[in-house]
Amino acid sequence: MVTAPLTLAEVSESDLLRRIFPFFEAGPSLAVGPGDDAAVLRTGATTVATTDSMIRGRDWLDEWSTPADVATKVLTQNLADVAAMGARSTAVLVSLVADPATSLDWAVEFARTLGAEAASVGVVVAGGDLSSAPDGVLLVSVTALGDLGHRQPVLRSGARPGDVLAVGGSLGRSAAGLALLHDGTDPRTPPPGIRAECVHHHLRPRAPLAEGPRAADSGASSMIDLSDGLLRDGHRIAEASGVRLDLHGEGLAPFVASLAQAVGDRALDCILAGGEEHSLLATFPGDLPEGWRPIGTVVEGSGVALDGVVQQPRGWDHFLPPEASEDGA
Amino acid sequence: MVTAPLTLAEVSESDLLRRIFPFFEAGPSLAVGPGDDAAVLRTGATTVATTDSMIRGRDWLDEWSTPADVATKVLTQNLADVAAMGARSTAVLVSLVADPATSLDWAVEFARTLGAEAASVGVVVAGGDLSSAPDGVLLVSVTALGDLGHRQPVLRSGARPGDVLAVGGSLGRSAAGLALLHDGTDPRTPPPGIRAECVHHHLRPRAPLAEGPRAADSGASSMIDLSDGLLRDGHRIAEASGVRLDLHGEGLAPFVASLAQAVGDRALDCILAGGEEHSLLATFPGDLPEGWRPIGTVVEGSGVALDGVVQQPRGWDHFLPPEASEDGA
Repeated sequence: MVTAPLTLAEVSESDLLRRIFPFFEAGPSLAVGPGDDAAVLRTGATTVATTDSMIRGRDWLDEWSTPADVATKVLTQNLADVAAMGARSTAVLVSLVADPATSLDWAVEFARTLGAEAASVGVVVAGGDLSSAPDGVLLVSVTALGDLGHRQPVLRSGARPGDVLAVGGSLGRSAAGLALLHDGTDPRTPPPGIRAECVHHHLRPRAPLAEGPRAADSGASSMIDLSDGLLRDGHRIAEASGVRLDLHGEGLAPFVASLAQAVGDRALDCILAGGEEHSLLATFPGDLPEGWRPIGTVVEGSGVALDGVVQQPRGWDHFLPPEASEDGA
Repeated sequence: MVTAPLTLAEVSESDLLRRIFPFFEAGPSLAVGPGDDAAVLRTGATTVATTDSMIRGRDWLDEWSTPADVATKVLTQNLADVAAMGARSTAVLVSLVADPATSLDWAVEFARTLGAEAASVGVVVAGGDLSSAPDGVLLVSVTALGDLGHRQPVLRSGARPGDVLAVGGSLGRSAAGLALLHDGTDPRTPPPGIRAECVHHHLRPRAPLAEGPRAADSGASSMIDLSDGLLRDGHRIAEASGVRLDLHGEGLAPFVASLAQAVGDRALDCILAGGEEHSLLATFPGDLPEGWRPIGTVVEGSGVALDGVVQQPRGWDHFLPPEASEDGA
């Protein structure tokens, strides 16, 4: 006899909280943790704050993504935004807005992974919200808080002509992974090597979080998290700073060569327009921090160019239809 | 010729942001506002943080609630949670997760009201998130941050036998308003007087935010925001503190008498089990702050009683079916 898995409708809110609170480790920054009206955090003179949501059917598909994948991705999206200010994440709040028919196992596995992934980078889960949703809806949301320490925030607006444009982390891997999934690659058993790395990065990205504060310490003049594609996010720096970013094909070549092993001639498009990478794009007036790779320069003008040829902003835009908002896959 | 109203699908994310950012006033606590990867806030030694969402079809109906109503309600839910810790809200992050077919007017009016309501209580809108959702889905989410100043947080766990149980604000009005709407009352033109007040409080609640820090300054031993009903939220204090809350019919009588003019013999049920009131329930070992009204005492035991008769926890539970989770309406 097979027993149907329990749904959220079969447990009370307090039952569910009792099951998931143990996944959330305390930490020195947490004065009052989950379970009261609000969390209380020990903070510095400034606090960095950002929020990002994922909803099933737009931001993930259950056919491809496990609850652990979703937990890792929504956490990474937020922590990368904090890192892109030059800050270190300290705490997150987590929301689950779910159809009561959602399986209890999904919610528990989501919370378990979120707690473990947060703890692995020194972030406490300070609180959150559970709410019910209409039929079929499943949404997760994270708010991340961070600490700049002694640093000034690194904004999008500080790039100046003559700065070197550089990337901390990978390029195009998430989009390549998505392309491979669309090609029919099994998300659980992708071919080993670069293809597995791309699929894994799409489903369960981790961001180079330590590079944010490191870039700030190295004098980064501007920085952004690559969430919507190199062109679209590059345009944001260009617009905020009143400059042009000129990408160099030579700088991108190693990224293209590596990615071509996974997706062939789609590699450059994945790199230019692929979203959800969560690497850091920054400009530096002086030496690059170790491990950062130069991919262009800041020049007078506007927009983003590739070897001097102006590029239209492509990449993810939430509300535009697909023909106007390519995600590069 | 009638032109169809613009939808979110007809504007880009950056267009939409350009339309709504002007509604968000800056303030001294905001070092970096909306438009970068994350907000940067000036904070004290501790920061209070909470988050709450509302989704169309479960938390509001478009037939009853305008975007201004929804903005006010989701803001109040969060600010009341901060107040219930004894803190003053300083900043919010706001998310809109919307079907691209959502009208642009809805989003703009939501943002306009949220900005105005936040500014009216000295809170800055520091940032947020825009995301697209599958067909028909419309969700709004707020994260509120607050400052305790010199105060210790007031937890749910500090109630002690002998303390006086008191309420800052109204009781049962939101549930009574919801009952009137179910009765067929027009949400835009309810009968004047107490019935209009109840409908208005249900659709567009405002919380007695200043009472939170005031209760803390008066030595409140425990405090909670009345979001899920007097019995259910009372149980939370009782459980966290290891005590019983004994409600006094005499103390509730003025609330019942007032509400009976709107909903007749349903008044007591609205008061005991009605959610979304966003008044503050607290316990005091000494004198009550001015304006707070005593409604019971803390005694040895567990759970919540009414004149000595133990009451089952009723009130809103997000995942239980309606028969197990009465919202008092």
